[in-house]
Amino acid sequence: MHSFKELLQDFDKKFSVRHFPNDPATLYDSSQYILGLGGKRVRPVMCLMGNELFDEINPDAYHVATAIELFHNFSLIHDDIMDKAPLRRGMPTVHAKYGESSALLAGDVMLIMCYEYLNKIDDLNKKRILSLFNKTALEVSEGQQLDMDYEKKEMVALDDYLRMIQLKTSVLLGASLKMGAVMGGASEGNVNHLYEFGKNLGIAFQIQDDYLDAFGDPEKFGKQVGGDIIANKKTFLLIHTLEVAEEQLKQELLHIMQTNPSDKVQRVLAIMKACSADAWAKELKEKYLAIAMDHLEEIAVLSKRKEPLRELAQFLVQRDH
Amino acid sequence: MHSFKELLQDFDKKFSVRHFPNDPATLYDSSQYILGLGGKRVRPVMCLMGNELFDEINPDAYHVATAIELFHNFSLIHDDIMDKAPLRRGMPTVHAKYGESSALLAGDVMLIMCYEYLNKIDDLNKKRILSLFNKTALEVSEGQQLDMDYEKKEMVALDDYLRMIQLKTSVLLGASLKMGAVMGGASEGNVNHLYEFGKNLGIAFQIQDDYLDAFGDPEKFGKQVGGDIIANKKTFLLIHTLEVAEEQLKQELLHIMQTNPSDKVQRVLAIMKACSADAWAKELKEKYLAIAMDHLEEIAVLSKRKEPLRELAQFLVQRDH
Repeated sequence: MHSFKELLQDFDKKFSVRHFPNDPATLYDSSQYILGLGGKRVRPVMCLMGNELFDEINPDAYHVATAIELFHNFSLIHDDIMDKAPLRRGMPTVHAKYGESSALLAGDVMLIMCYEYLNKIDDLNKKRILSLFNKTALEVSEGQQLDMDYEKKEMVALDDYLRMIQLKTSVLLGASLKMGAVMGGASEGNVNHLYEFGKNLGIAFQIQDDYLDAFGDPEKFGKQVGGDIIANKKTFLLIHTLEVAEEQLKQELLHIMQTNPSDKVQRVLAIMKACSADAWAKELKEKYLAIAMDHLEEIAVLSKRKEPLRELAQFLVQRDH
Repeated sequence: MHSFKELLQDFDKKFSVRHFPNDPATLYDSSQYILGLGGKRVRPVMCLMGNELFDEINPDAYHVATAIELFHNFSLIHDDIMDKAPLRRGMPTVHAKYGESSALLAGDVMLIMCYEYLNKIDDLNKKRILSLFNKTALEVSEGQQLDMDYEKKEMVALDDYLRMIQLKTSVLLGASLKMGAVMGGASEGNVNHLYEFGKNLGIAFQIQDDYLDAFGDPEKFGKQVGGDIIANKKTFLLIHTLEVAEEQLKQELLHIMQTNPSDKVQRVLAIMKACSADAWAKELKEKYLAIAMDHLEEIAVLSKRKEPLRELAQFLVQRDH
């Protein structure tokens, strides 16, 4: 058994190669560029952990992990185009650096390359892995579409937002673990508990992310606190506040969102606190974390094998940065 | 054995279903929309013909043919975004109708769905088919990138243009036939001759396309003659004319291209004719058609089995519309 950190080093070493041909450079340099910007590589390592929970790591699991990380970067390239985002990890986004058309194609070849890695795995698991990969890839796209649809709405119901977050973020975490478990020969029941662990952990992670953007310690958080508030982004906090606020407070909040006063962040935070959105979010996060941990406990392997996943859960959800 | 027309009816019937989930409609309706605009379905039918050249049609060949047609439509959606094209088959392009972000995602899910169809085929052929599909998909993307790169250049060498056309257009025709042949259990040698047949036929087809845009009969052509000239598009005709024209004529041509006079089409056509670009293009087309037909003759099956492919070649390359 290995820790997250050990598996990360292992994966990073194997992943730090050029994944694309050299020519035409105008196409493939832009694909390779985003991989050089780094990233936490959480998803591919979760694939390896899902495998190791049940058995020694199957060499094919590295191909699947690579496909997962390439897919994640494909979605980042295309999402950044749609969101017109200028920066990613503090560096210019692919479209900002190479133009929108090249970025679009760079994402396309990144997605195609995922399937080239998946095609390397043994026939024994290929159909099942491809099926899960495709299902997840469609769901992530659905999540991105819903996110864009919701941006145009003034109000979004909490259930709708939850569904969007599940699709856009959580299912890929669940599927990464699940693909690893399949490579490790796990039974159907165990595989499904692991998927639910990852999915619910993903929701808890997103609640934490929304919380930190509003209430995080600026020094530890590392980026501008209140970014979501400035952008009027629908978050767990905003949606809940709009749902529970009394009419007068709700109108004040909507007015602030429309008029963007200079003290916007401070005033929105005050309204969120008046509605106890901060305490509510912490509780909601704990609820989903508990569901996740229950599913982890249900998996029929020796408890000590689950230790790395418990540590991962704490790392993802209890982090303050 | 079936004719192209019979196989087209057969494929069209199977393909005329909804290929995507209903929800979210904002995502999947835009994907389904382009499939409703029709198209000649040449590529999927070539896949079926490649199969039937060697054996009765393998039911899996319909899955591969469907993936090929979806891939073609994926590339149209994304190319139209890059080219900022307002119309496709006389109707609004996907991005013109649904917005660029939705069109981008519609293309993404179309590409993912290709692999869902490819995942349906038997393990026996899956690795080889996926490998060829991925290689071709990367090549088509490379062709689109080169096309964009060349748009920014004043002069493009004929060899470079040929390479771009091969990647953007021809390899998918060759691969469609080849995938069919693999499904039909053809030997490696036969498979490769069929691929070369399709690839060279694709080049001849593109030369014909460029020729018709300039010298076609407006009544038979069905769209504006001279569209490529108005857009200063690099075509076989323009590249050859710039290569062989004497200095004075060349400068006149470049001047017309820069200044866009009202009689632009007429004047450019006169210069092309003065350089015998029309006769040269016809000869070049015949050259590639002959190479294609030589490869077809090399395939070790009864000559009469090749009749539908001979008819297809005539249809694609001798058409005047």
